[in-house]
Amino acid sequence: MLAQKYIDMLGRKSVIRELSEYAVARGKEIGYENVFDYTLGNPSVPVPDSYNNSLKRLIDEKSSMDLHGYSQSLGIREVRDAVARSLNRRFGMNYTLDNIFMSSGAAGALAHAIRLVTVPGDEVLTFAPYFPEYGPYVNHSGAVLKVVPPDTETFQINFEAFESMINEKTMAVLINTPNNPSGIVYSTATIKRLASILTVKSKEYGHIIYLISDEPYREIVFKGVDAPFVAKHYDATITCYSFSKSLSIPGDRIGYVAINPACPDAEMMTVMCGQISRGIGHNCPSAIIQWAVSENLDITADISVYEKNMNILYDALTDLGFTVVRPGGTFYIFPKALEDDAVAFCNKAKEYDFICVPADSFGAPGYIRLAYCIETEKVERSLEALERFVKENY
Amino acid sequence: MLAQKYIDMLGRKSVIRELSEYAVARGKEIGYENVFDYTLGNPSVPVPDSYNNSLKRLIDEKSSMDLHGYSQSLGIREVRDAVARSLNRRFGMNYTLDNIFMSSGAAGALAHAIRLVTVPGDEVLTFAPYFPEYGPYVNHSGAVLKVVPPDTETFQINFEAFESMINEKTMAVLINTPNNPSGIVYSTATIKRLASILTVKSKEYGHIIYLISDEPYREIVFKGVDAPFVAKHYDATITCYSFSKSLSIPGDRIGYVAINPACPDAEMMTVMCGQISRGIGHNCPSAIIQWAVSENLDITADISVYEKNMNILYDALTDLGFTVVRPGGTFYIFPKALEDDAVAFCNKAKEYDFICVPADSFGAPGYIRLAYCIETEKVERSLEALERFVKENY
Repeated sequence: MLAQKYIDMLGRKSVIRELSEYAVARGKEIGYENVFDYTLGNPSVPVPDSYNNSLKRLIDEKSSMDLHGYSQSLGIREVRDAVARSLNRRFGMNYTLDNIFMSSGAAGALAHAIRLVTVPGDEVLTFAPYFPEYGPYVNHSGAVLKVVPPDTETFQINFEAFESMINEKTMAVLINTPNNPSGIVYSTATIKRLASILTVKSKEYGHIIYLISDEPYREIVFKGVDAPFVAKHYDATITCYSFSKSLSIPGDRIGYVAINPACPDAEMMTVMCGQISRGIGHNCPSAIIQWAVSENLDITADISVYEKNMNILYDALTDLGFTVVRPGGTFYIFPKALEDDAVAFCNKAKEYDFICVPADSFGAPGYIRLAYCIETEKVERSLEALERFVKENY
Repeated sequence: MLAQKYIDMLGRKSVIRELSEYAVARGKEIGYENVFDYTLGNPSVPVPDSYNNSLKRLIDEKSSMDLHGYSQSLGIREVRDAVARSLNRRFGMNYTLDNIFMSSGAAGALAHAIRLVTVPGDEVLTFAPYFPEYGPYVNHSGAVLKVVPPDTETFQINFEAFESMINEKTMAVLINTPNNPSGIVYSTATIKRLASILTVKSKEYGHIIYLISDEPYREIVFKGVDAPFVAKHYDATITCYSFSKSLSIPGDRIGYVAINPACPDAEMMTVMCGQISRGIGHNCPSAIIQWAVSENLDITADISVYEKNMNILYDALTDLGFTVVRPGGTFYIFPKALEDDAVAFCNKAKEYDFICVPADSFGAPGYIRLAYCIETEKVERSLEALERFVKENY
């Protein structure tokens, strides 16, 4: 019989997707350039030329078997080695290829990390506001996702709530910094305090509590922001990365799991990822994409536009009286709505063709997310609509 | 804590992989051209030029967003439409894009198909000899794989055993034709008889028994062989396909699930695949690979070498007194070993640098598999070693 749990999911349509579809439909009526669509986190800047050039050169130069043949089940060895060296160079770590597992983006990396350190029934803690897909990522593996309420003053970690929720069933803590949807980067102080609690609690409960660090926005950090490399501060860190945002290649589906070499059994954990793959039908990202990424590890697309957009929006929002914490990275900003009901707020904004999403599904009701990975020119044009909307309604 | 079930898997090394590693190591000693390595099903013929040309043209012509942006969660609509039309043209079906879900190869397709129609505890029946990865594919989803013993006369289905094993817990039957490892293609008579039993039993048990048809070798069928399109004969067929073998692109990781439009709730099942993806961290094959494949649906790599190799090996094996059923497709041949213990047989063959794998893990002890996706010249040179091995030992 058809599996009921997936049928049940069909009814619950994502509010982000609904609003995004509305924006596209509205664009067909009045021209998409006139719809201020802040719904989707789809990188707007083009892929770097050097990445496309790598792809073309690889097609010309590599043998069919090398380019299109099976990659090893943990990823191509040369690529894993290049990833390890890049991390070591940039963050002073000491990874080897035996700590790197190539994955299909961050989604694939998280699917492996969660199965690696939990069995059905175990708890995984995460911090609001959080990426709503963590729900299916964790719950479909059989573990249970518990959400620690936010510290809305700073959107750093609410440690009081965290310490009241961590317990002997907590096998992993899942963080996302720079954060979708808040745009906040966890400071060194935050990461150190988190690491120290995890160390104490691991000892107390007699088992390691793993830190799963989801870092697709790691490269998008704004000027002067303190952005520590998480694994440097806690041995049992499993870093999940995606090249989707840094290279503007979300469709290419590539990322990795990096196991901190200081973690007990680190090398075995990498090999275990290969076994997990067998059950979920993942057999590595495309070989050609692995090769191309390995030649472009230390560069990014021109992501400077995101900081420019953030500054414009942050100033406009504060001028209009919004409560908003200044983002330290990503391409999201996360103001408090001007009424308690963020859904009602977003519905009213729609009337001005200003499309943003309520943050109820991110675990922070009353807030809204703007994904400003769009042209700066459009951000500027959107301010008039935003101002009109606010003045006429609040 | 680390998930014990994946640690337990680490000890059980695949005999295929072990022998393959032995062949490579031996190649370093005596030159790989002198090792007759029949271990791995890795396509030997190069990718068609038109496929590489598609990739290069797409890079030059498509916008960054179209080529490297997120694909829709069921796959790119134009690609799904092209796949449906190709199937309709070639097999007289009436798929639409709403029946097609793009997957990461056959592994990804099977991971989705199994989760679609089973819940933990349900039984999936398959027929020996079978691809050993079906074990983790099925068991890690929570369902239970049951293996029907082989009909060693023909390697078609052993219907007597099948009818004694099917029961009310059977939610799906998983077939693989053309078959790895036997090389046998199920005839129209076989598929019709199977369909008729499934129809009767579905009625008897009050639920649909789905037929999951794993078809990565569909395009590799030899002259004059009856190779029915399975879904034509049974409404509730879920076809799992991979382009790995037909286009020689196993490293590109692309395939699809096709739900027979005659199956009840067919279109909902496709959408369910998108929900299943969320839990297993799969978000479509690479967009660029989807586009390239969609321009090369009706062609294959030059797969004629496989039939040539099969004929050479079949004649040599029968001349030497092996019991062997003539393959109808794939690049495998499946003779009975010349002693009861196929492992001992393969170990002795190793002494002659003739490397083949015992079929115990394929559910057919006493048999051996030769993967002849290697150069014809090497197949010809291997015959002397094979003959010497047989004459000196049996």
